Amino acid sequence: MRTIEVTMVHVYLTEGDHHLKSLLACLHDEEKVSGVTTYRGISGFGKSGKIHSSTLLDMSLDLPLVIEFFDEPAKVETILEHLNKKVEPGHIVSWSAKLHLGE
Amino acid sequence: MRTIEVTMVHVYLTEGDHHLKSLLACLHDEEKVSGVTTYRGISGFGKSGKIHSSTLLDMSLDLPLVIEFFDEPAKVETILEHLNKKVEPGHIVSWSAKLHLGE
Amino acid sequence: MRTIEVTMVHVYLTEGDHHLKSLLACLHDEEKVSGVTTYRGISGFGKSGKIHSSTLLDMSLDLPLVIEFFDEPAKVETILEHLNKKVEPGHIVSWSAKLHLGE
Repeated sequence: MRTIEVTMVHVYLTEGDHHLKSLLACLHDEEKVSGVTTYRGISGFGKSGKIHSSTLLDMSLDLPLVIEFFDEPAKVETILEHLNKKVEPGHIVSWSAKLHLGE
Repeated sequence: MRTIEVTMVHVYLTEGDHHLKSLLACLHDEEKVSGVTTYRGISGFGKSGKIHSSTLLDMSLDLPLVIEFFDEPAKVETILEHLNKKVEPGHIVSWSAKLHLGE
Repeated sequence: MRTIEVTMVHVYLTEGDHHLKSLLACLHDEEKVSGVTTYRGISGFGKSGKIHSSTLLDMSLDLPLVIEFFDEPAKVETILEHLNKKVEPGHIVSWSAKLHLGE
């Protein structure tokens, strides 16, 4: 099975940031990332220490959002330089992974 | 604390693929993976460039799905050879991790 | 772009464990982890082999939960020693990653 090295990225936001739409558009239209998935967490907290969590009453107020994507390491490095200007420092994590390309 | 090396895997699907049930059954019944979690994303896009996203109106139409599992590296390698025939090329990512086994 | 090495962690629970609240409080109040996100899976299974899945009828019964957090490697090691007493063995996975700190 052929594999290539990729860099996986998690970008941490909250719904209250209202950044998701513009970041996804940027990754899609400008950076041409091959694949992106966004998850909504059910609870979490960041450096503010403020806990964000979902109950039946406030399900969509300010929950954590995570954008996950991967691409070739050099391309991701360029993307992260751009994202870094749009996302708070300390909210982007990356690691090396293998993409499986089929036989 | 004892740890063993494992391989973590993300398999990317969308709900429209209608593959989730058969892949989970395969991982459970045939491959005997020790643990699997499936996430539904709230938005995303793949190589088609088509954006999949959830609104109140079409919450369950064609959202991204991610199957996450881990197991011993050699076992995962065998599993990925099997999965590779059932999943589109370029939709499986893996990386090395440590499983913490307790004291 | 400045980066520092961190350890990423996934802790696997199910809603039926009723551990989430106390684990989050521990990570927040005692361990002072800089950021935590909890995800609810839509299906999954663990060592018991019992499949947990969501349908419209039992959406919130016993779904998989994953706590994701990262911090400096030495701090995470200490945290995992504490968590290990509160979580079933074999339910914690960790890997090395880079945190991007801005320019």
